[in-house]
Amino acid sequence: MTDEPALSTPEQVDTVLADAAVAAPAVASTSLVERARRLRSVAARIDADAASLIAVADAETQLGPQRLRSELLRTTNQLRFIADLVVEGSYLDAVIDTAREQPPDGPRPDVRRSVVPLGPVLVFAASNFPFAFSVAGGDTAVALAAGCPVIVKVHEGHPRLSACVAALIAEEFAAAGAPRGSFGVVYGREAGRRALLDPRVHAVAFTGSTRAGRALFDLACARPAPIPFYGELGGLNPVFVTRGAVAARGNVIAKEYVGSVTLGAGQFCTKPGLLFLPRGHGLDDTLIGAAESIQPGPMLNDAIQAAYDSTLADLTRHRSIRILTAGAIEHADRVVGAMLLSTSIQHLEQSLEALSVECFGPASLVVEYDDSRQLPDIASSLGGTLTATIHAEQDEIEAVMPLVNRLQNLAGRVVWNGWPTGVAVTRAMHHGGPYPASTSPLHTSVGGAAIRRFVRPVAYQAFPDHALPVPLQDANTWSIPRLVDGVYTNEPVSRV
Amino acid sequence: MTDEPALSTPEQVDTVLADAAVAAPAVASTSLVERARRLRSVAARIDADAASLIAVADAETQLGPQRLRSELLRTTNQLRFIADLVVEGSYLDAVIDTAREQPPDGPRPDVRRSVVPLGPVLVFAASNFPFAFSVAGGDTAVALAAGCPVIVKVHEGHPRLSACVAALIAEEFAAAGAPRGSFGVVYGREAGRRALLDPRVHAVAFTGSTRAGRALFDLACARPAPIPFYGELGGLNPVFVTRGAVAARGNVIAKEYVGSVTLGAGQFCTKPGLLFLPRGHGLDDTLIGAAESIQPGPMLNDAIQAAYDSTLADLTRHRSIRILTAGAIEHADRVVGAMLLSTSIQHLEQSLEALSVECFGPASLVVEYDDSRQLPDIASSLGGTLTATIHAEQDEIEAVMPLVNRLQNLAGRVVWNGWPTGVAVTRAMHHGGPYPASTSPLHTSVGGAAIRRFVRPVAYQAFPDHALPVPLQDANTWSIPRLVDGVYTNEPVSRV
Repeated sequence: MTDEPALSTPEQVDTVLADAAVAAPAVASTSLVERARRLRSVAARIDADAASLIAVADAETQLGPQRLRSELLRTTNQLRFIADLVVEGSYLDAVIDTAREQPPDGPRPDVRRSVVPLGPVLVFAASNFPFAFSVAGGDTAVALAAGCPVIVKVHEGHPRLSACVAALIAEEFAAAGAPRGSFGVVYGREAGRRALLDPRVHAVAFTGSTRAGRALFDLACARPAPIPFYGELGGLNPVFVTRGAVAARGNVIAKEYVGSVTLGAGQFCTKPGLLFLPRGHGLDDTLIGAAESIQPGPMLNDAIQAAYDSTLADLTRHRSIRILTAGAIEHADRVVGAMLLSTSIQHLEQSLEALSVECFGPASLVVEYDDSRQLPDIASSLGGTLTATIHAEQDEIEAVMPLVNRLQNLAGRVVWNGWPTGVAVTRAMHHGGPYPASTSPLHTSVGGAAIRRFVRPVAYQAFPDHALPVPLQDANTWSIPRLVDGVYTNEPVSRV
Repeated sequence: MTDEPALSTPEQVDTVLADAAVAAPAVASTSLVERARRLRSVAARIDADAASLIAVADAETQLGPQRLRSELLRTTNQLRFIADLVVEGSYLDAVIDTAREQPPDGPRPDVRRSVVPLGPVLVFAASNFPFAFSVAGGDTAVALAAGCPVIVKVHEGHPRLSACVAALIAEEFAAAGAPRGSFGVVYGREAGRRALLDPRVHAVAFTGSTRAGRALFDLACARPAPIPFYGELGGLNPVFVTRGAVAARGNVIAKEYVGSVTLGAGQFCTKPGLLFLPRGHGLDDTLIGAAESIQPGPMLNDAIQAAYDSTLADLTRHRSIRILTAGAIEHADRVVGAMLLSTSIQHLEQSLEALSVECFGPASLVVEYDDSRQLPDIASSLGGTLTATIHAEQDEIEAVMPLVNRLQNLAGRVVWNGWPTGVAVTRAMHHGGPYPASTSPLHTSVGGAAIRRFVRPVAYQAFPDHALPVPLQDANTWSIPRLVDGVYTNEPVSRV
């Protein structure tokens, strides 16, 4: 086992940033094919070294080999997905408006728009996904795909694993002839803060708590030159179950809910924090039985454990809260069982601020409602959230549409008859939402559109063809999709 | 002539915001066709009332009927362009990934993504375009197109015109059956500030000075729930002329440059503030002649005049500055002639901070360089800017590519053998750029993509077809372009 890496000194941070700044033009001009090749080589290397990486990760996080193996697989598949995406070129958002002699208000010049990389990107790794949201995780993959150098601020929860993955990326990049500053890491909160304030950093991606994310967001906005700060924070992820769904499959829903709440010991930003059930649902025993049958899981670190204890203490002290099942908490091992609480929709309304708090860990609140017509208003009173979920039967669709309409104003993803944990890495995925789900509601941290966070549009007016970037030249030699005079096409442009 | 409207009281601001919040769901669910119809009816009404509106505008701004008529035409064409765009539906960014049994890492649910309106948008109108960047200007048009209620904070420079345009919009909207809160205006800086801090406002668009824009940006970021703040601020808009271009058409370039600098008395955010000419260009006489032949133009208000005087005083006091032509300044009428200054690239490098300042008004600085290889580095040392321009000959393209590469990192739009003033309203246009050109470098305030600022993605997972928003339903009844499993198509989706 390698030693735990030391905290980066200010001089070390400065060197990493200086290297990134020097590398930026070369990284930006790296071909899409070569960017994809580098991502795939990192993926192949992580797959090849999986056994030793998982051992290091398990020693640091106690997440267990099975979970870590599936997360590693997700991580390398994500790198390959992004590699495929970048060569496709739709992310370039190429738009061409050819010159016109007489549009309504006079002649119009030839204008063509595509995107350029923002420059060095600082990624704050998350504690809860040591592979998928960390050194070689989604933010790193898309920032590299976009043509930006990446600096990862390593998470304190898994520094040894981070050093291993960083070394592996550095080796693959060196073998590919990438400049040294293409990728770097810094260790320690002070190092992260220093990098965030440095003018050589042009964008920040963060996954973590609302408190830490907001503090960093405030710093990013207050810089002399503010930069985009993409904070993926969390939310309550409410689940709404209709009377029809309870009647048709209440027991299955109850068991799956407990499974979703306790996955990764509840330390997912998409964990369902609220379950709305119709009064008289009769599922208490199933919920309790499911919760008690789940093996207690490890909390990621002492700070998360302490925050969990404190939030839960506040919640359970509240007079309106009934404890359905109080999973054992073994502080010595940081091992925690499922904690299910219950209240009524009236109590939630009356004590909204106290009861609608995110509790990071395997706890969730069951809320009993009387009438489904209460649901749209209570939904709208909850804060922004990453996800919202509906369980309903086919013949209830009309009836739940008012709720669906409210949920899309609240959440970045609405799930039908499923569970929010598990975020598919696809083109259509959106992992974000109104504040406090994210600090940038227009952007996603997972899926194909995540790359958009690290590029900026540039319009080229009346350019000669061969002075244009390749994606905007008439010939379209890369055959990328382009919006030409309002129509999507992969064909070349013929100038009149 | 109507009376000048009074400043909005806190109670009036509250009423406008309350109306907007109430109207938001109805505005969001207004069909694209109906949104387009409302924009077109406003355009038709402005065209019909053009004579009286121009009279009011001219009395308030002294911009002259000719300029105001062309700006009015631009404004109504912009409303119609956005109306066409919204019914096309590509702004909906519809992406569909159908379910798969066995992608690399297991089964994948059906995920579909489109956009929803952000909610009430606050628009700060600009002083320098009383039609095109004001009450019925571009920000208003795209926010309404996106399905957001709009509140315009009227600019102090043309309150009567603003009241007329607002009344006209209110009448057209009422006739169309739009809810009262679909559109509103507030008067006065304190009213604007109050609205910006109100939780019922979900996004802000601003066009104006860096100082005012930054102050409002800071307030928007510091809200308990921060909101997107799209500030379009300005920049130096440097112009680089090669030796070949001077030889081929130096006199034309010099005359056109003076025309671009003095258009609207230099009060455009795209006014060229720097002109790089090769030493020995021999164009001083042409520049001076052109500047002296231009009729002095009116400054928009006392504050702009005072800022112009003060910036110019600092510049002309600088020992390295040579005055080419000092246009008369008649303070009584706020009428100002062209002011052309000159310096060398060495002096600019040595006094970068003092000399690279935006001077809002008909002033510009000619910078003499020795060797075109000096240009990329001086370009990179300038701050973010809306535009950058190159004048070069066909056989110099190779030689200027290093400069082009730097300029695309600096500017939102790069212009070839043209002038940055005059921003075409097209799909490909980008009017923005790195800070301080804009507070949100990923977004444009002009053109088709401007609408993206006011919508937010939502993903729908495993939804039954008829619970999905129409743009994401299998049938694609609106025939909008969608990215289906990675391919753009207007065809329906067939589920397997």
